[in-house]
Amino acid sequence: MKKLINNPDHVLADSLVGVAAAHPELNVDHINRIIYRGTPTRKDKVALISGGGSGHEPLHGGFVGLGMLDAACAGEVFTSPTPDQMHEATKVADSGAGVLHIVKNYTGDVMNFEMAAEMAEAETGVKVASVVTTDDVAVEDSTWTAGRRGVGITVLLEKIVGAAAEEGRDLAAVTALAKHINDSGRSMGMALTSCTVPAAGKPTFEIPDDMMEIGVGIHGEPGRHRVPLASAAEIAQQLVEPILVDFDFTGSPTIVMLNGMGGSPLIELYVMYGEVAKILQKSGITIARNLVGNYITSLDMAGCSVTLLKVNDELLGLWDAPVNTAGLRWGV
Amino acid sequence: MKKLINNPDHVLADSLVGVAAAHPELNVDHINRIIYRGTPTRKDKVALISGGGSGHEPLHGGFVGLGMLDAACAGEVFTSPTPDQMHEATKVADSGAGVLHIVKNYTGDVMNFEMAAEMAEAETGVKVASVVTTDDVAVEDSTWTAGRRGVGITVLLEKIVGAAAEEGRDLAAVTALAKHINDSGRSMGMALTSCTVPAAGKPTFEIPDDMMEIGVGIHGEPGRHRVPLASAAEIAQQLVEPILVDFDFTGSPTIVMLNGMGGSPLIELYVMYGEVAKILQKSGITIARNLVGNYITSLDMAGCSVTLLKVNDELLGLWDAPVNTAGLRWGV
Repeated sequence: MKKLINNPDHVLADSLVGVAAAHPELNVDHINRIIYRGTPTRKDKVALISGGGSGHEPLHGGFVGLGMLDAACAGEVFTSPTPDQMHEATKVADSGAGVLHIVKNYTGDVMNFEMAAEMAEAETGVKVASVVTTDDVAVEDSTWTAGRRGVGITVLLEKIVGAAAEEGRDLAAVTALAKHINDSGRSMGMALTSCTVPAAGKPTFEIPDDMMEIGVGIHGEPGRHRVPLASAAEIAQQLVEPILVDFDFTGSPTIVMLNGMGGSPLIELYVMYGEVAKILQKSGITIARNLVGNYITSLDMAGCSVTLLKVNDELLGLWDAPVNTAGLRWGV
Repeated sequence: MKKLINNPDHVLADSLVGVAAAHPELNVDHINRIIYRGTPTRKDKVALISGGGSGHEPLHGGFVGLGMLDAACAGEVFTSPTPDQMHEATKVADSGAGVLHIVKNYTGDVMNFEMAAEMAEAETGVKVASVVTTDDVAVEDSTWTAGRRGVGITVLLEKIVGAAAEEGRDLAAVTALAKHINDSGRSMGMALTSCTVPAAGKPTFEIPDDMMEIGVGIHGEPGRHRVPLASAAEIAQQLVEPILVDFDFTGSPTIVMLNGMGGSPLIELYVMYGEVAKILQKSGITIARNLVGNYITSLDMAGCSVTLLKVNDELLGLWDAPVNTAGLRWGV
């Protein structure tokens, strides 16, 4: 295992030291492993909290700041944060307008966020709502979930719902919007290579040099099938087609994210984006906005995923609204 | 070789198709392989042009836009663009106030930019100045250069000098500033793994599982020495110490870039940044601004580099000025 780390057991703690050093505009609670905004949440603003296992950076800590999250809980690599962490984050971020938990659909995350919500409501009376993202069309149930996995839509949701919360919308409205976005988005990913979890010290799965995994999860969990290596154009087809079969993206503008899994260089991600854009154009889908880069990663896995989100003018306005985070920044 | 590409010989062309699709705010000349701004350079603004071999993305195409470059020439992977490309870029970007060529010190790049400057001056009378970056302290001469290699300072220079050009400073002032920045910056890099050039189809160099290359170049060219794998703290020491031996960064604020080589995940880059920040603090160096992420990469190489730039209030003001590019964006 070749990694830029001190000790496989201290990766999260050490990376949070780096986050704190690099981002004086954020607060880092090293005990509870929470990243939260340096300026307290406004009294009239619903607080947005997310979190999950580490190893997917910039998700979620890189999306804390104006226009996105108020706080993010970092679990150990590929391990859910604890209910206590989420409870602490809920307390630190709540300003009285309530808290939305944004939860990727993995069994541990869902269970722990539910417990945290109960703890927070019982202890402090804070109103907590939640949205569970389920955009991955690859598999209906997986080794890590009941139902579909939550992946790339989480990034787009945090941005758009973050803008809505910043506008002062109430908890019910923010929650409804979050559910609408999850319902309107779909993703599919693939891997050329496995990731390596530091504490495991070896690749999560073995894959031959001439094969790739289509529909892979963001922890290296199995996808739909393992097939021979193919061209970028064919890979794009294998990612986009299942998405379009699952949901109709014609007739409205669409936001497209071509996301790198962590180990694929940007030049390849642009090759992939070119192929995805061609397919969408042929399918009569209008790309209104796009992201190309590493946004929800799987450590050092080589590969990529595609996320589509059907939007309208209102959602595009929220997308374009100012955001000031380590991972996404514009308008400020 | 596992890559998200169509054909090893078409990577650059295909990636430019993706860049054009993803960035409607930019112009892409697919024949001459030039990325330039969608809105013409203002009459009173010195135009900034850079370029070099591809495979270092987001450098340089990802830094075209308000507050940074006016145009970037993309060579084949790890291969200098031709003088004709640079000549075309010079013509397309010049608005009458002259053009600054920002050239990383590699023999082919330097020679070709010189020829392009002569061609442009002879043909159209455009005034061309140039700056050659030479910030890599690893080696005095290398397999690819006479003198030190140009690496990470190029990113910081393009940002700061871009802001100065945007202010309307003339060609002499912009050129002097660029040289000052190169003189005030130092870098050092390392690799855990080799990169793989698509057209070669195999790793550029072989390195055992228990070794790393300290002082590596951005094309995988040899560094100072090959040593056993070490902790992030020890790696940080091996990168920062040669920089501090070479240049005195005490007494003024410093901009620090912890740059990923392309294959190292962000969580590891933050671990590294934390260690670099600790060393700088102990050395009495004040970090005024920082970047952590992939800015000047080497395809899929795992590893990182550190760049330090000594600045003052004027340079920090230029650093903080608005920038609107795919790779760096703030204030807009």
